[in-house]
Amino acid sequence: MSDAPLFGKVALIGIGLIGSSIARGLKAVPLAGAVALADRSDEVVARARALDLADVVTTDLAAAVADADLVVVCVPVGACGAVAEAIAPHLKRGAIVSDVGSVKGSVVAQMTPFMPGHVHFVPAHPVAGTEHSGPDAGFAELFHERWCIITPPPGAAPEAVARLTRFWQALGSKTEVMAPDHHDLVLAITSHVPHLIAYNIVGTASDLEQVTESEVIKFSAGGFRDFTRIAASDPTMWRDVFLHNKDAVLEVLGRFTEDLIALQRNIRWGQGDQLFDLFTRTRAIRRSIIDQHQDTADPDFGRARK
Amino acid sequence: MSDAPLFGKVALIGIGLIGSSIARGLKAVPLAGAVALADRSDEVVARARALDLADVVTTDLAAAVADADLVVVCVPVGACGAVAEAIAPHLKRGAIVSDVGSVKGSVVAQMTPFMPGHVHFVPAHPVAGTEHSGPDAGFAELFHERWCIITPPPGAAPEAVARLTRFWQALGSKTEVMAPDHHDLVLAITSHVPHLIAYNIVGTASDLEQVTESEVIKFSAGGFRDFTRIAASDPTMWRDVFLHNKDAVLEVLGRFTEDLIALQRNIRWGQGDQLFDLFTRTRAIRRSIIDQHQDTADPDFGRARK
Repeated sequence: MSDAPLFGKVALIGIGLIGSSIARGLKAVPLAGAVALADRSDEVVARARALDLADVVTTDLAAAVADADLVVVCVPVGACGAVAEAIAPHLKRGAIVSDVGSVKGSVVAQMTPFMPGHVHFVPAHPVAGTEHSGPDAGFAELFHERWCIITPPPGAAPEAVARLTRFWQALGSKTEVMAPDHHDLVLAITSHVPHLIAYNIVGTASDLEQVTESEVIKFSAGGFRDFTRIAASDPTMWRDVFLHNKDAVLEVLGRFTEDLIALQRNIRWGQGDQLFDLFTRTRAIRRSIIDQHQDTADPDFGRARK
Repeated sequence: MSDAPLFGKVALIGIGLIGSSIARGLKAVPLAGAVALADRSDEVVARARALDLADVVTTDLAAAVADADLVVVCVPVGACGAVAEAIAPHLKRGAIVSDVGSVKGSVVAQMTPFMPGHVHFVPAHPVAGTEHSGPDAGFAELFHERWCIITPPPGAAPEAVARLTRFWQALGSKTEVMAPDHHDLVLAITSHVPHLIAYNIVGTASDLEQVTESEVIKFSAGGFRDFTRIAASDPTMWRDVFLHNKDAVLEVLGRFTEDLIALQRNIRWGQGDQLFDLFTRTRAIRRSIIDQHQDTADPDFGRARK
């Protein structure tokens, strides 16, 4: 095996939680000869420079992607098209262009029209994140043992897909290849609808006129606080996810609501056996998630005990 | 201040997560001259003996409560009436009888008819728990910095309420007094409906024919796994909560569904501003919960990073 890094230069566009975590990962693992970070916000760029996240940090997207062998777009899904348009004329011949968006069908539709024929466009989605956002929130271990789903378009060069796969595996991820539409449905149930429900119940709680917000906060350890974690996620990113994965989210949401109405009816009519059966069935899924190292078995997620 | 313990003898009926956590707390803090633990299951009693949780561990509820100055009933809400009936004839004159049920109106209604006039019946609810159950799951620190809500009936002796308050504070809790009906509404939003929603989405996910259970598990780090924690909670306890707090749960659930349908409509019609406004508002509640030490500020609840 050669000691040469996998890519000569890597450019990351967007320095939020994901972009800054990749940048930190690239400091820990020698995958890139050079790393350029770009963001349109002066404030974010200044902060990323202060954190010393890369060799070059700039607001100039064109300069960042020039000569880059891999470009990873790490912006909210709704901004992918505009970024693709901005960087397209400056892309190196033969470069791999990828992204990290939580929705794949829309990203493919937005970016493909701008991609020059001489680059390899291979979208991807690392299924990892926290409730924190911005360049300070990232960390190199974010992707460890998490899955990265790669959604190459039909006819993508196998060598480009293989190099992107090696990139994510070197950052600690496990990888899987999937069609964009199937990705969007899988993520609707495993991520998008859970976020929507979490946002919604926190909203419902703060609107209840018979219960004060102070009471909601005080007694949140009964379960509510678990929902507030994901309801603290980045509003721009999540607005875009729902607008851009509309069909799959509406489909899964329809099923969720239907099932919830059935449970509501069980409660109204005192049908305890049906409740008990569901509550028993759901335990098994938790065990599988722990067995596959996608969560911790410690009580309360291992929250520190006083 | 006297060095004498607060109570001569404390009896705990039911040795699950809560009963065994109180028992462990009583080993750490000298609140009781003696502790008796009782459970109707031979298996649970054998396990509690092996764990050395108390001076006496028995299946004989009458023997456990005999001479006890404080009796705390720690069984699922649906079993409170039967336990009250079983222990009533054996209660010591002047004893305080309490419970830990997550529903208070129903517990008051079930237990009050059996309580002799010579005892002080003061229901309470420590708002603390984990997804694990049984005598092995308990730990003394479970109640630290958590709230215990005390719901004395009209005319309760202030001295009895004060002693129960000191008991919970010594176990590490903060305490608050509330009317049973208000408690049940507050817990419906902070605990019961969140659990129902979590159980429901885990059920919906496992029923989706287009997405395999293996995919749901693999990609659960996108948000879904947070729901599976509380959907792994004890099925019997939670069945009873929903059957016994029916009115408040149906009221809050109705509002939740109404709000969710409005969000669904926002998504269908591409109303991003409304989504963004809600997603921004919900962040503030998370911050308050952390400020009040009801959760950790660490990303991912402080889940261990690989």
